[in-house]
Amino acid sequence: MAKAKFKPLGDRILLKPLEDTKEQVRGGIIIPDSAKEKPQEAEVIALGTGKKDENGKSVPFEVKVGDKVLISKYGGSEVKIDDVKHTIVREDDILGVIA
Amino acid sequence: MAKAKFKPLGDRILLKPLEDTKEQVRGGIIIPDSAKEKPQEAEVIALGTGKKDENGKSVPFEVKVGDKVLISKYGGSEVKIDDVKHTIVREDDILGVIA
Amino acid sequence: MAKAKFKPLGDRILLKPLEDTKEQVRGGIIIPDSAKEKPQEAEVIALGTGKKDENGKSVPFEVKVGDKVLISKYGGSEVKIDDVKHTIVREDDILGVIA
Amino acid sequence: MAKAKFKPLGDRILLKPLEDTKEQVRGGIIIPDSAKEKPQEAEVIALGTGKKDENGKSVPFEVKVGDKVLISKYGGSEVKIDDVKHTIVREDDILGVIA
Amino acid sequence: MAKAKFKPLGDRILLKPLEDTKEQVRGGIIIPDSAKEKPQEAEVIALGTGKKDENGKSVPFEVKVGDKVLISKYGGSEVKIDDVKHTIVREDDILGVIA
Amino acid sequence: MAKAKFKPLGDRILLKPLEDTKEQVRGGIIIPDSAKEKPQEAEVIALGTGKKDENGKSVPFEVKVGDKVLISKYGGSEVKIDDVKHTIVREDDILGVIA
Amino acid sequence: MAKAKFKPLGDRILLKPLEDTKEQVRGGIIIPDSAKEKPQEAEVIALGTGKKDENGKSVPFEVKVGDKVLISKYGGSEVKIDDVKHTIVREDDILGVIA
Repeated sequence: MAKAKFKPLGDRILLKPLEDTKEQVRGGIIIPDSAKEKPQEAEVIALGTGKKDENGKSVPFEVKVGDKVLISKYGGSEVKIDDVKHTIVREDDILGVIA
Repeated sequence: MAKAKFKPLGDRILLKPLEDTKEQVRGGIIIPDSAKEKPQEAEVIALGTGKKDENGKSVPFEVKVGDKVLISKYGGSEVKIDDVKHTIVREDDILGVIA
Repeated sequence: MAKAKFKPLGDRILLKPLEDTKEQVRGGIIIPDSAKEKPQEAEVIALGTGKKDENGKSVPFEVKVGDKVLISKYGGSEVKIDDVKHTIVREDDILGVIA
Repeated sequence: MAKAKFKPLGDRILLKPLEDTKEQVRGGIIIPDSAKEKPQEAEVIALGTGKKDENGKSVPFEVKVGDKVLISKYGGSEVKIDDVKHTIVREDDILGVIA
Repeated sequence: MAKAKFKPLGDRILLKPLEDTKEQVRGGIIIPDSAKEKPQEAEVIALGTGKKDENGKSVPFEVKVGDKVLISKYGGSEVKIDDVKHTIVREDDILGVIA
Repeated sequence: MAKAKFKPLGDRILLKPLEDTKEQVRGGIIIPDSAKEKPQEAEVIALGTGKKDENGKSVPFEVKVGDKVLISKYGGSEVKIDDVKHTIVREDDILGVIA
Repeated sequence: MAKAKFKPLGDRILLKPLEDTKEQVRGGIIIPDSAKEKPQEAEVIALGTGKKDENGKSVPFEVKVGDKVLISKYGGSEVKIDDVKHTIVREDDILGVIA
């Protein structure tokens, strides 16, 4: 399965951007055409190996695989997995979860 | 309900800007047309999942849903929810609460 | 009362700038017309909800409501309350108190 | 053996980039031609002497020799070992592991 | 007395610059006309309310009222007190004391 | 002996760059002519007085006198000792050791 | 005595640059005419009042009065004492001691 192919390192998260798809319309959140910073809707595909606190303990992620999230368009790295564009971001770059 | 649709991550807060509306006039605070940095009046719609301190404990927010606040016009991300412009900011970007 | 209308967040302080008024002349401090950074005289109108130290304890402010202070002209956000220009600054941006 | 010739210092890692080779195709991840930041596939050749935490204890690496990883194209230093291009990066510059 | 009129906040210090005066000549330190950064001789007029360490304890100042010091010409804020130019600096901006 | 003439301060290290010499060829690592950042081969001539941790304890260096190392070409200060070019770098600027 | 006239504050050090003098030649270290950053030979004239660690304890300097040192040409402040150019630097700006 394609989704299992890539394991992000540390506090990074693998996302599949949802651009101009039905899912975005159904979620009810539409990115405006004008404003300075326009977030992007995306689906969480894989969580990183975990962010460590000062004592080396793993800190739990605040999102889970399958969550629909908003991310900033600036930042992150773009890769293609099985010909589909994906984005790798740090968890702190995720603005919030669409419930 | 639209307001329940989006859960900001961490110390972020979802706001609905109040621009040129009656509410702004009633609040008695008018943004000047001239000066260098002009704050913007907004209503708190949803609080984030919580800012963590060094021990991983959740720190309470200083604002609550429904508060009228002033934020800097610079910073934050803009999204449309049910066709209404919203702004996602970190709590530290909120200048204060209009009582 | 207008002064009670706005509660600054965290270590922020609401000030009313004193520009070209009798109070400024009486205070005996005159801002020079030339130099690189010219501070501005202002009156403390409202203190923030409080700066927190690392343990979450509230740290007392070093100024109090009614103090005449000098602030840097750069930095801070400008708002109008009851048609009077006010400035919101962080306490660390206050240079000192005029006794 | 060429791979044993260079020991990276601290949290650095020696990588051999996989550019336009069969291995990259078999891995199923293709770097897009367009987007702002394009990661690069690479193989882990040698781990550094180890990242130290505040108490001077060595922290284990999250990758191992032989792992296929994605790295940002920006950052890192390029050297030739036995006429083959290699890259030296810090572990935090590795985006994730291709499983 | 004019000198008592202004109390600097925190680790700030109120200074009276000594420019082209007899005092500067007597001190034996002459600022060169050429070089990149030219410090300025000044007299300490008032100490701040005190720099706090991490535990909130007050840290003693390394200069005292009446000291002749050298400061960088860049940095600091300039005010006029009783028609005399003064400068407000942080203690760390003082290069040293002229004995 | 020339090598004993200079003692670097703190975590600094004195290096003698190996440019276009037999030693560089024998080491088997050749710096490419093209890429963005090209490291440089060098020999460790003298270690600094030691990096201190937070408790003031000396932390051991990860390289020793005589090691062949790779350093970034950017950073460091260049001096001539007995007419031979040397470079002073911080240990963290050393990419790794050539075994 | 001129050298006793100035006491640097904190971790600062007063130096007398040695430019084009016999001492520099005898020291055997010659600054190259070409390279990017050219250090400068200087003599330690006076130590600061002391760098403090987190607990407020004074940390000993690694150089002493009379040492010949190399400093970066960039950084530091230049003053004239008894008509002789001097430089005030922080100890961390000293590259090393010429033995």
